[in-house]
Amino acid sequence: MIRRKKRFSDHNSLAASIEFPVRFSEVDSLGIVWHGHYILYFEQGREAFGRKYGIDYLTVQSMGYTTPVVSSSCEHKLPLRYGETARVVTTLRDTPAAKLIFQFQIFNEQNALVCIGETVQVFLDDENNLVLNLPQFVLYWKSREVL
Amino acid sequence: MIRRKKRFSDHNSLAASIEFPVRFSEVDSLGIVWHGHYILYFEQGREAFGRKYGIDYLTVQSMGYTTPVVSSSCEHKLPLRYGETARVVTTLRDTPAAKLIFQFQIFNEQNALVCIGETVQVFLDDENNLVLNLPQFVLYWKSREVL
Amino acid sequence: MIRRKKRFSDHNSLAASIEFPVRFSEVDSLGIVWHGHYILYFEQGREAFGRKYGIDYLTVQSMGYTTPVVSSSCEHKLPLRYGETARVVTTLRDTPAAKLIFQFQIFNEQNALVCIGETVQVFLDDENNLVLNLPQFVLYWKSREVL
Amino acid sequence: MIRRKKRFSDHNSLAASIEFPVRFSEVDSLGIVWHGHYILYFEQGREAFGRKYGIDYLTVQSMGYTTPVVSSSCEHKLPLRYGETARVVTTLRDTPAAKLIFQFQIFNEQNALVCIGETVQVFLDDENNLVLNLPQFVLYWKSREVL
Repeated sequence: MIRRKKRFSDHNSLAASIEFPVRFSEVDSLGIVWHGHYILYFEQGREAFGRKYGIDYLTVQSMGYTTPVVSSSCEHKLPLRYGETARVVTTLRDTPAAKLIFQFQIFNEQNALVCIGETVQVFLDDENNLVLNLPQFVLYWKSREVL
Repeated sequence: MIRRKKRFSDHNSLAASIEFPVRFSEVDSLGIVWHGHYILYFEQGREAFGRKYGIDYLTVQSMGYTTPVVSSSCEHKLPLRYGETARVVTTLRDTPAAKLIFQFQIFNEQNALVCIGETVQVFLDDENNLVLNLPQFVLYWKSREVL
Repeated sequence: MIRRKKRFSDHNSLAASIEFPVRFSEVDSLGIVWHGHYILYFEQGREAFGRKYGIDYLTVQSMGYTTPVVSSSCEHKLPLRYGETARVVTTLRDTPAAKLIFQFQIFNEQNALVCIGETVQVFLDDENNLVLNLPQFVLYWKSREVL
Repeated sequence: MIRRKKRFSDHNSLAASIEFPVRFSEVDSLGIVWHGHYILYFEQGREAFGRKYGIDYLTVQSMGYTTPVVSSSCEHKLPLRYGETARVVTTLRDTPAAKLIFQFQIFNEQNALVCIGETVQVFLDDENNLVLNLPQFVLYWKSREVL
């Protein structure tokens, strides 16, 4: 119980952190990470979250679901340059809806906030139909991890 | 005058359209275009707009400015699959602020709306300072094209 | 017969050409197209070839085969910059082996050779087994197009 | 001296290893890593090598040089799938020429060879002229690290 609480970063929300160097190919002719690559950084954050909490993509798929991203947004505060390291903090925003809402904060090495963002995913069943209620295995997962 | 009016798609807003086939590498393991690639599609739309109206990136740069994207958002309505064609309609949203706000609609071959999105760009001068008023050349450009 | 001969660019080899502007996101901090993106340009060339000659990926797949790339190479002669246009000329190299070998030449707007490359693809059947002889539909396709 | 020898993987050649999970966006509709992404994996290998041995891109640039890739090749042995980890082993091939030649081996978690590849880089000086002899700082670096 206490062990779990320790993982909560903010009022019972689960969070995972991952850090990696900016790759040369991600920097544009202005010398900064091209804005579209942050969507990949968010994905790396989401994947780190999934691995940490056992809700990764392959697990979800093995339960008969896929979770396509239906919306995403990104707000840039500071540029990231080559030679710098990106740290992505990914937080699950709790919602009763049949959705996965992740929020992202990216920091540079000086711990300054580089950008924030959000992705929303829905659940499709194995016939690609939109699922209107959270699948049973997600409810069970939340009861173990979030509550 | 009349010639210009014809280019207005919607209440005096300028719009450009570009069409291209989905590339194999853009489709993910679910068989649909990976959500992050739409940011590239938006960029292709913005570039087509710039070429059409003479406000392309190299022109802006030659005036001493760069225009980094400070926020972007994307909302997905339908998937795009390999073999399909994406048509990106890019519209400039008029604003008195020192910003470039573009709105995007992506359609498939059946003319169904695949996704909508928006990017916001600011102007930096040649010392990378944020410009608080629209640069003179943009005001002049708007007076010719938008009004 | 004569109509077909006209399409031959070089000793009975089939070729297709496609042209597109360099995308902003493809240019690195040196101001030139990042070397890895040429693999995508080759793919766009291969796809244009497939559409032109009816041997595109979806057609191949509908015959029960996939054609993964098993090797690729790229040799760079000149850089491509933002604002430039890439023209990819894709040529099928004839071979009796159960392979698709494509050769690529990329030119800039001054018609100078930017890079050359090659990809080799094999055929896998619907059980992912390597096919040792050219599939029947490819032999038939070659008899119509190449000979 | 002995410390350095320990780093040699093969007859005095320097090598660096880096490991990372396959990212969802890198997997194509066949369920395997798209072949073009291996060029990025090679870059991650080269960057890990640079960081380990103090010959990274920013160091080279601070000496007044850039090192564009002039050729690359990649040969695929096995596919990589989502959920798998890629381990890239990057080896500097010694050459008296004014070039950096890196060889890459990518392994999966079962230590099976997934692909091999090579990139060749040349040195350009600060006026973008091709350098015909290895720059002094590289000779010095080699005398410390390689010999």
